[in-house]
Amino acid sequence: MLSKKKFNVNGDPGMKAQIQFADQKQEFNKRPTKIGRRSLSRSISQSSTDSYSSAASYTDSSDDETSPRDKQQKNSKGSSDFCVKNIKQAEFGRREIEIAEQEMPALMALRKRAQGEKPLAGAKIVGCTHITAQTAVLMETLGALGAQCRWAACNIYSTLNEVAAALAESGFPVFAWKGESEDDFWWCIDRCVNVEGWQPNMILDDGGDLTHWIYKKYPNMFKKIKGIVEESVTGVHRLYQLSKAGKLCVPAMNVNDSVTKQKFDNLYCCRESILDGLKRTTDMMFGGKQVVVCGYGEVGKGCCAALKAMGSIVYVTEIDPICALQACMDGFRLVKLNEVIRQVDIVITCTGNKNVVTREHLDRMKNSCIVCNMGHSNTEIDVASLRTPELTWERVRSQVDHVIWPDGKRIVLLAEGRLLNLSCSTVPTFVLSITATTQALALIELYNAPEGRYKQDVYLLPKKMDEYVASLHLPTFDAHLTELTDEQAKYLGLNKNGPFKPNYYRY
Amino acid sequence: MLSKKKFNVNGDPGMKAQIQFADQKQEFNKRPTKIGRRSLSRSISQSSTDSYSSAASYTDSSDDETSPRDKQQKNSKGSSDFCVKNIKQAEFGRREIEIAEQEMPALMALRKRAQGEKPLAGAKIVGCTHITAQTAVLMETLGALGAQCRWAACNIYSTLNEVAAALAESGFPVFAWKGESEDDFWWCIDRCVNVEGWQPNMILDDGGDLTHWIYKKYPNMFKKIKGIVEESVTGVHRLYQLSKAGKLCVPAMNVNDSVTKQKFDNLYCCRESILDGLKRTTDMMFGGKQVVVCGYGEVGKGCCAALKAMGSIVYVTEIDPICALQACMDGFRLVKLNEVIRQVDIVITCTGNKNVVTREHLDRMKNSCIVCNMGHSNTEIDVASLRTPELTWERVRSQVDHVIWPDGKRIVLLAEGRLLNLSCSTVPTFVLSITATTQALALIELYNAPEGRYKQDVYLLPKKMDEYVASLHLPTFDAHLTELTDEQAKYLGLNKNGPFKPNYYRY
Amino acid sequence: MLSKKKFNVNGDPGMKAQIQFADQKQEFNKRPTKIGRRSLSRSISQSSTDSYSSAASYTDSSDDETSPRDKQQKNSKGSSDFCVKNIKQAEFGRREIEIAEQEMPALMALRKRAQGEKPLAGAKIVGCTHITAQTAVLMETLGALGAQCRWAACNIYSTLNEVAAALAESGFPVFAWKGESEDDFWWCIDRCVNVEGWQPNMILDDGGDLTHWIYKKYPNMFKKIKGIVEESVTGVHRLYQLSKAGKLCVPAMNVNDSVTKQKFDNLYCCRESILDGLKRTTDMMFGGKQVVVCGYGEVGKGCCAALKAMGSIVYVTEIDPICALQACMDGFRLVKLNEVIRQVDIVITCTGNKNVVTREHLDRMKNSCIVCNMGHSNTEIDVASLRTPELTWERVRSQVDHVIWPDGKRIVLLAEGRLLNLSCSTVPTFVLSITATTQALALIELYNAPEGRYKQDVYLLPKKMDEYVASLHLPTFDAHLTELTDEQAKYLGLNKNGPFKPNYYRY
Amino acid sequence: MLSKKKFNVNGDPGMKAQIQFADQKQEFNKRPTKIGRRSLSRSISQSSTDSYSSAASYTDSSDDETSPRDKQQKNSKGSSDFCVKNIKQAEFGRREIEIAEQEMPALMALRKRAQGEKPLAGAKIVGCTHITAQTAVLMETLGALGAQCRWAACNIYSTLNEVAAALAESGFPVFAWKGESEDDFWWCIDRCVNVEGWQPNMILDDGGDLTHWIYKKYPNMFKKIKGIVEESVTGVHRLYQLSKAGKLCVPAMNVNDSVTKQKFDNLYCCRESILDGLKRTTDMMFGGKQVVVCGYGEVGKGCCAALKAMGSIVYVTEIDPICALQACMDGFRLVKLNEVIRQVDIVITCTGNKNVVTREHLDRMKNSCIVCNMGHSNTEIDVASLRTPELTWERVRSQVDHVIWPDGKRIVLLAEGRLLNLSCSTVPTFVLSITATTQALALIELYNAPEGRYKQDVYLLPKKMDEYVASLHLPTFDAHLTELTDEQAKYLGLNKNGPFKPNYYRY
Repeated sequence: MLSKKKFNVNGDPGMKAQIQFADQKQEFNKRPTKIGRRSLSRSISQSSTDSYSSAASYTDSSDDETSPRDKQQKNSKGSSDFCVKNIKQAEFGRREIEIAEQEMPALMALRKRAQGEKPLAGAKIVGCTHITAQTAVLMETLGALGAQCRWAACNIYSTLNEVAAALAESGFPVFAWKGESEDDFWWCIDRCVNVEGWQPNMILDDGGDLTHWIYKKYPNMFKKIKGIVEESVTGVHRLYQLSKAGKLCVPAMNVNDSVTKQKFDNLYCCRESILDGLKRTTDMMFGGKQVVVCGYGEVGKGCCAALKAMGSIVYVTEIDPICALQACMDGFRLVKLNEVIRQVDIVITCTGNKNVVTREHLDRMKNSCIVCNMGHSNTEIDVASLRTPELTWERVRSQVDHVIWPDGKRIVLLAEGRLLNLSCSTVPTFVLSITATTQALALIELYNAPEGRYKQDVYLLPKKMDEYVASLHLPTFDAHLTELTDEQAKYLGLNKNGPFKPNYYRY
Repeated sequence: MLSKKKFNVNGDPGMKAQIQFADQKQEFNKRPTKIGRRSLSRSISQSSTDSYSSAASYTDSSDDETSPRDKQQKNSKGSSDFCVKNIKQAEFGRREIEIAEQEMPALMALRKRAQGEKPLAGAKIVGCTHITAQTAVLMETLGALGAQCRWAACNIYSTLNEVAAALAESGFPVFAWKGESEDDFWWCIDRCVNVEGWQPNMILDDGGDLTHWIYKKYPNMFKKIKGIVEESVTGVHRLYQLSKAGKLCVPAMNVNDSVTKQKFDNLYCCRESILDGLKRTTDMMFGGKQVVVCGYGEVGKGCCAALKAMGSIVYVTEIDPICALQACMDGFRLVKLNEVIRQVDIVITCTGNKNVVTREHLDRMKNSCIVCNMGHSNTEIDVASLRTPELTWERVRSQVDHVIWPDGKRIVLLAEGRLLNLSCSTVPTFVLSITATTQALALIELYNAPEGRYKQDVYLLPKKMDEYVASLHLPTFDAHLTELTDEQAKYLGLNKNGPFKPNYYRY
Repeated sequence: MLSKKKFNVNGDPGMKAQIQFADQKQEFNKRPTKIGRRSLSRSISQSSTDSYSSAASYTDSSDDETSPRDKQQKNSKGSSDFCVKNIKQAEFGRREIEIAEQEMPALMALRKRAQGEKPLAGAKIVGCTHITAQTAVLMETLGALGAQCRWAACNIYSTLNEVAAALAESGFPVFAWKGESEDDFWWCIDRCVNVEGWQPNMILDDGGDLTHWIYKKYPNMFKKIKGIVEESVTGVHRLYQLSKAGKLCVPAMNVNDSVTKQKFDNLYCCRESILDGLKRTTDMMFGGKQVVVCGYGEVGKGCCAALKAMGSIVYVTEIDPICALQACMDGFRLVKLNEVIRQVDIVITCTGNKNVVTREHLDRMKNSCIVCNMGHSNTEIDVASLRTPELTWERVRSQVDHVIWPDGKRIVLLAEGRLLNLSCSTVPTFVLSITATTQALALIELYNAPEGRYKQDVYLLPKKMDEYVASLHLPTFDAHLTELTDEQAKYLGLNKNGPFKPNYYRY
Repeated sequence: MLSKKKFNVNGDPGMKAQIQFADQKQEFNKRPTKIGRRSLSRSISQSSTDSYSSAASYTDSSDDETSPRDKQQKNSKGSSDFCVKNIKQAEFGRREIEIAEQEMPALMALRKRAQGEKPLAGAKIVGCTHITAQTAVLMETLGALGAQCRWAACNIYSTLNEVAAALAESGFPVFAWKGESEDDFWWCIDRCVNVEGWQPNMILDDGGDLTHWIYKKYPNMFKKIKGIVEESVTGVHRLYQLSKAGKLCVPAMNVNDSVTKQKFDNLYCCRESILDGLKRTTDMMFGGKQVVVCGYGEVGKGCCAALKAMGSIVYVTEIDPICALQACMDGFRLVKLNEVIRQVDIVITCTGNKNVVTREHLDRMKNSCIVCNMGHSNTEIDVASLRTPELTWERVRSQVDHVIWPDGKRIVLLAEGRLLNLSCSTVPTFVLSITATTQALALIELYNAPEGRYKQDVYLLPKKMDEYVASLHLPTFDAHLTELTDEQAKYLGLNKNGPFKPNYYRY
C-alpha cells in the first residue's frame, strides 16, 4: 500500500530521485493516519487561509457539524453526483476561481486554442490533488479541452470548500472537503473511480494515493488507462519503484522533474517566499542579519540571493563540491554549520536531507536565533530532539514557537520545522500556473500519443513541451521571442520551432 | 582532413553539440591558411600580451628575424630536443610560470598527492595547446605525475616565447614560437610525434589538429594510444563526427562539456570579462547605459548580471522560451532586437549563432553605439556587411574601430566582431586552472581505466571527477565542505564521497 | 489650535520642511473629528494586529462594551491612577514588552549605563505617543533613567490594550485604550497633565496634540518645562511655525530629521516593507513584473532597490534632476508616468506630493494593475476621483479593493491609497528602536543642557548624539568599530570620539 | 606660499573640509619639488596614456629633446602666443577633442543655448588645470560663451601634448607640455597672467597654484578679478584658510563639494573604477575573493557595492558609527582590520586618513594579498614602512610591485599606494563632463552675479545650479523629467523650476 505521503521537497531534483526509503517497506502495509500526515502535506491553501484567503472566513459557518457524507445536496441543475461541505458557497468559490483565472494565462490560452479541436475529447480523467482555485482553473480547462473529470482531494486539510462547491455547482463530480477523516479520504477517492457506467482512462495524481487505490482495489481498470500524470516527489518515487519491480502497467509522466518546475518553482518562487515567510512570522528586519543557509541547490540559491539582496550576511553549507564552488563564486562564505552556529541570527535548511540541524546545534545557537526549513518534509531540523522536559515550548503566534532553554535562551522555531514557504507564506498563482499547464500538457501528450510511443515506464515531459509551457507564460511579461531565420536554423542544425537544446542542457 | 579550427564558443553547450557545419566537408580537404585563422583563435596569451604581460616586452628583441628552425640551440643540460624562439629567455618565462603556480592550487595539490604513486608513470603524452604559463604548470604537473610529454602550439600566435624557453630549459621537448608560419605549424606538430624510439600513448589536443595529423600521417600510432583528451568545441565536434562515422579508434574525453567548464568558465568568467573588455577598449561608464544582450545562455546570463549590477539597463533577446522566461524572472525585458536597436548604447552578442546583428541593425543604431561579441567565433555580427565603400573605417585604438556612415554616424566596433573577452580582456588564471585540472584528471582517468571501461566513443568526464576538480579548488576560498553522516548518506542513498547528483542535474 | 494630525511622510525630509499648508489656518479652529483621522494615522499596531499580533486576540473579549472611563480598576499595588481597557490583561502585555526588549538593545544598554547616574532624575515627562510594546520599553527606560512619566495615546486606534494594562500594572499612569472617542482622546491627555501636585517639566510628543493642549489650556505650565521632543512631521512643522511666529516658549528638538531616522527608517525599512506589504495583500510574484516608482528620494530608493533585486523591471519618475540622475546611474529608466502607465503591473508613489496618480492615469492602467502609496498621507493617489458612480468597488481582502471599470477592467488598490507599509506590513522593532533611542537621548540632552545652550527654537539633535544612537545599535550586528589613533585624529583634525563629519555631510 | 599640491581625495567630503594640516605652515615657505609631486597628482591622462590613449603614441617622437621654451612655433594663423610641445600634433589632438565632445553633451548644450546671449562676454579667464581633451572641450565652451582664455597646466605630467597643440592651433594661448620641469611649471603660469594689455577678471584653478602665484606676484590683479573657481580639495582648503585669515579678497566658488561631484564622482565612478583598476593590474578573478574595504564613505560604498555584485565577500572597517551602521544594513560585516587581515585576498583603503594599513598589518597578510588605495593621496597605506632592507621589491608590471618577505611571502602592491583609480584605470568622460559643466556654471554665476551677492568668502554652488548641471546630463540617458503642476508646486511650497530640496538634504 502506498504510504508516507507528501514527501514535499523544494530541494534538489537530483537528490530526490536517489532517495531510498529504508523503512518504506514496512510502512507499505501500515496505512498512516491521515491526521498524522498533516505536517507533511503541501498545505498551500492552508497557509493562504491562515493569512488572508477571504472566501473561507466569509462563508464558513463553524457550527455546521454535519458530515458532508450525511447531507443531501443538489446543484442548481439537479445533480447530486458530488460531495462537498456546502453547495451554497458556490458563488464565493466562483469569485476565487475568476481571480485565479486572471493569473493563469497559459491555461486560458489552452482553452482558446482548443475551441476547434478538443485534444482531450473522450478522455475520462480521475484526479486527486489539492482542491484550490488554481486546481479549479486546471479542471475547467481540462473540461474545455473535451475531458470528463472526477476529482478527490489529495490532502484532508487543503480543500477550499467554496471552490469545491463552485466546481460541483458547475457540474464537476467533486468529492472533497476541508477536515476529512481518514475514512472520508478513501471514501472520496473511491467515489471518484467506483462509478456505474464510467471508467477513467487517465489518472492525474499528486502523491500516489489515487494510483495506489486503483492498484489495490480495481487493478483491472488499468486495462483502459492510457497513462498516469504524477506531480509529487513521493508519487514519482513510488512510480519508479513500481517500474523497477516490473509492476508499472501503464506509461507515467514525471511532472516533478520538468525544467519549468525545477528551475522556476524552486529557484524563483523560493527566492520570494523565504522573505515572505520570515516577515509574516517574525516581522524581523533582514538588513545586517547573519544567516546560514544549509544547501546550495536551487532552493538554497534562491534563498541566498534574496537575503543577500536585502542586506543579510549569508553563509552556506554544502556537501557537494560543485554546488559549493558555485556558492563561493556567488559571494558566500562556505562553512561547516558548527563554525557559525554560535553567531548567526537565522538558520535555514534547504537540503532534502535529514537531521541537518541537530540538538547539538540548537543547544549552541544564540538567544533569539530563528530556525526554519525550506527544504523538504519536516526532517531537516531534528525537532523531535527539542521535545524534552527541560525545554519549554511557548506558542507566540500562529506557526511560531519559542523553545526556551533552562538559562532563558529562546530559539524561534517556525512551522515546527515543516516547510516555511508552504506553511507561512503563499505560493503565487503564477508558479502554480506553470505546474498546472505542465500537467495539462502531460495529459494531452499521453492521451494522444500513438500506440507504442510510451512504454510501461516513467517519462519526463519532452523538451519541446517544456518549451511550450514556457512560451505560454511569456505574454504575461509582454515578452517577445526572437525567431530563427532559415539560414540560422540551418547553421545551428535546429528546427525553427525547437526543441532548442539537447536534453542534458543545464539552463 | 581536419579543418576550421578554433570555433570558439562561450555560448550554449547545448547548441554547440548540435552545430552542423554545412560546408564542413569541402573544407575537409582544404587546409585553411593558418594566418587566416588568427581571428578564430583563442588568443588568450595574445590578449594578455596586448595589455600588460610583461615578460614579452622585456625580452623580445624584435630585430631577431632568424627562424627558430634555423637556429642551433641547447639548454643548459645540453639537450637540443626542442625548438623555441630563444632559449635565453628561459629565466623570464620561469618567473611567469611561478606566478601562475600560485593561482593554480589544484594542480599543485595533484603534484603533492602524487609524491608516492605516480598515476601517469609510463604515460607518453603528446600535446597541442596554447603555450602559456598556465599550460606550463599543467605540463610540469603531468611530468610530476610520471608522464613524459612532447608539446606543440595549437595556434600560430598564442605562444609565449619566454614560457616555451623555460619549458625547453627544464627538459620538455617543446616546439613552438609566436608567429609560426603555416608550414612551421605542421612541422612543429610533426616533430612532436615523429620521433625515433618514442611513441605517444596519450593525446591532449585543443582544436583537433594534432589528432588530425596523426590520423592522416601515422594512423598506426593509434594502436598504442589509450585515449584522446580534447578541449575545444571544434575538436569535440570532430570527434563526435568520427565516432558517428565509426572511425574513432580510441576512447576520447570531451572536456569542453564538463560542468566545471560550462558553469564556471562561461558564467562566472564572462560576468567579469564583459566589464573588463568594455572598459579597456572604450573607457565607457556603465551606469545608466542601455544595453541589449542577444542570448541568455550561460554567457548571456553572466553579461546581464554584471551590467545590471553596474547600473546598466539591460534588454535581452532569446529564441528559446525557457531561457526567455528565465530572463524575465531575472528582471530583464525580453525584446526583439529591432524593438530596441535605435535606443541602445551597447549591443552584445552571446548566441553561438550567426548574423544575429545584421547590416540592417547596424544601419539603425544610434551614433556612438558600441557593438561587440561575447558568443563564439566571429560570425555573430555580420562584420562583412560593413566592408562597403560608403562606410569609412577608422582604427582609433587597438581592437577598436569606428565605422562611419555617410551622415557622420559612428558605430564603435570592438575586436572586429571577434570574441571580446579573448581579444580585449584577460582570462583569470583561476578559470584556466579549472580547465587544466580537468584535462589532467581526464588523462589520468583514461590512462588508468581498466580495459574495456571506455569504448571507441566520446565520453564526458565522470561526475565524480567533476566533483573532484571542484573540490581541489575550494581551498582557494578557504571553503569548508560538509560531510554526510552515515545516517544521512543512507537516508539519501548516496555514497559519502559522491557522486552527489544524478547525471541530469542542472546545477 | 493644532490640526490635521499625522501627516505621515516616509518621503523626502527636504520636502517636508518646506511644505506650506495653504489651508492650515482655517483648520486651526476646526478640530478634526478623531474618527476621520483614522486613515491618516500611523497604525503600526493596527496593522500588526491585522496579521499576527497575538496578545490582542487571546484576551480581548469583544463583548465588553463598558467605557474604561466608567470602570473602577486598581493595579495589584492598589493604585488607580490610570485608565486602560482592562488591567487584567497586564500579563499578556508584559510578555509582548519582554519580546520587544530583546530587539531594543540600545534602550536596554541605556538602562545599564544609568545604573549609577540617573540622567533623568527629577524629570517629569508627559508623553503622547502610540502605545505599543516598543513605546513601553521606551517609557520603562525613561523610568530607569530617573524620570517620572504620565502617558496618553496620540491615536485613537493604535493602543495595544494589553501593553497599556502592563504599564498601568507596573505603576505608570497611562490613559489610553483602543477605540477612544474624540472626547475620550482629549480627556486622556488632560488626565496626564492636569494632576494635583505634579507638573511636567518635559514633553515627548508625536503629532503635536499634547503640546497644543498645554498651549491652549495650561500655558503657564511652560514656565517649568525645559523642552519638547517631537517626532512627527506634522508636529515638527507646527513647532517651526510657532517658532517663526515667535510663540515657541521653550526649546524643541526635531527628532524627525535626524540622520538615523531619515537614512535608516526611510531607506532600509521601506526597502523591506514594500515587498512585505505587496506580498501580504496580493500574494503576487515580483519576478518579471513591470513597476513604476514615483519619486526617487530615500523611500523611492529603497523600493526600487528591493524590487530590482527581486527581478522586477523598475521605472522611475522624478521632478528633481539630481535624484533623477541618481536613478539613471542606479540603472532605472527615468520616464514620465504617462509613458509607461499602460504597460506597468504596479504603480508605487513615494513623492510626498499630491495627485501624483490621477484619475486619468488610473483610466489608462491595464487590467489587474496594482496601485499603492509608500510616500505620505493619502493624497498621492487621487483616490477621491475613483468614487464615481460608473466605477464599482469590491473589497476582496482586508486592505485590498478592486475598482472595476465599466468594461470589466480591475485596478487593485491597496489600503485605499494610505501608506502601504503602515497599513499592510509591520514595522520591524529594530527601526522603532532607533527612533525611541533618539527620543530618549533628546530628552536627556534637553533636560541636562546648561542654561542658555538651547533657546526658544527648534533644534536638530547634535551630530554626536546621532552617532551615539548609531553606536548603540552596532552590537546587534556584532559590529566592531575602529578607533582613530592619536596620530590619525590629529591628521584629520578630529576628536577621537567624534563627531566625525561636518553637519552638511550627506551619508 | 602654496604648497603640497593635489591632495587628491576620493574620500569623504566631510572629512576633507575639516582636515587640519598640522605641518602646513612650515611647508608654506618650502616649495615642493614638482617632480616629487608626481605621485600626488591626478594623473588622469597619465593613466589613460598608459593603457590605450592612442594619439600620444602615434605622434610623440621621443627623440625630440628640445625644450618647448626654446622652440619657435606658430599656428596656421600666424600666432605664436602659446608654448606647446609640437604644434604639428594639432590634428591628432583635434580628433581626441571631437571624441570627447560626443560624451560631454552638457557643455555642447551650453554652447547651443549661448548662441544668442553670451553670458561670458567680456570675461577674461585665466585657467590652470590638467590639459586633456575634456578640458579642451571646457575651454572651447568658455570661448563659445564669450570668454577670452589663457591656460597653463596644473600638473607637470598630465598634459596631453596633442590636445595642447590643437588648442594652440585654434587660437588659445596655452602654455603646457608633458614633462615640464619645476621651473617650466611656474614659467608657464606666469606667461598666462603676465601679459601686456590683458588682465584676467576670472580665475579657474585646480590645486591653487595659479591663485597662489597671483597672490604672490601680482596682488593688484585681484582688483579686477570677479571671482575664483576652484576644484581641488587642497585648493579649496587653502581658500578656506585664506578666508579665515581675512585674506581672501574676492569671492570663491568651491566646486569640489557640490553634490554632483560628491555623489556622482565618488560613488558611481569609484564603483566602476575599482573593478577596472584591479583587473588591469592583476587580471584577478573577483568571484569568491575576500576583500576588506577600509572606510564606508561614498568611495567605500561604491567599492563595496561593485565587489559584492561581482561575488566577492566584503568586510568593512569604519570609525564613524553612522557609516558603520549603514555598512551593516547594506550587508557587510563590520570588523577591525586586525580581525580579518590574515584571511583577506585584497585590502582597499578609502578613508582619507593616514597609515590605515600599517607595516604590522602588511606583515600579517597572507601570501599574494593585493593592497591598494582608492582614498586619497598616498598616505593611507604606510608604503614607506616597506622600504626596509629585509624586504625585496620586484616590479612585475607597470604599477604592480611584489614586495617579498624573507620567507617568500609576496604582497602585491598597486600603484605604490597612490590612487588606484587614477593610476591604473581611466576616468570616464561622462564624470569629467559633470565637473567641467559645474566649473563653467560657477564661472557664469560669479561673473554675472549682481554686485554684492557674493562677498569675499568661499561659496558652494547654489543648489539650483547643481540641479541645472544634473538636468543637462539627463538627455544622455534619454531620461524624462516630470514637471510639477501648479497645484502640486503650491502644495509643496516649491518653485516649479527648483530648487527642489533644502540645503541640508542628503540625497
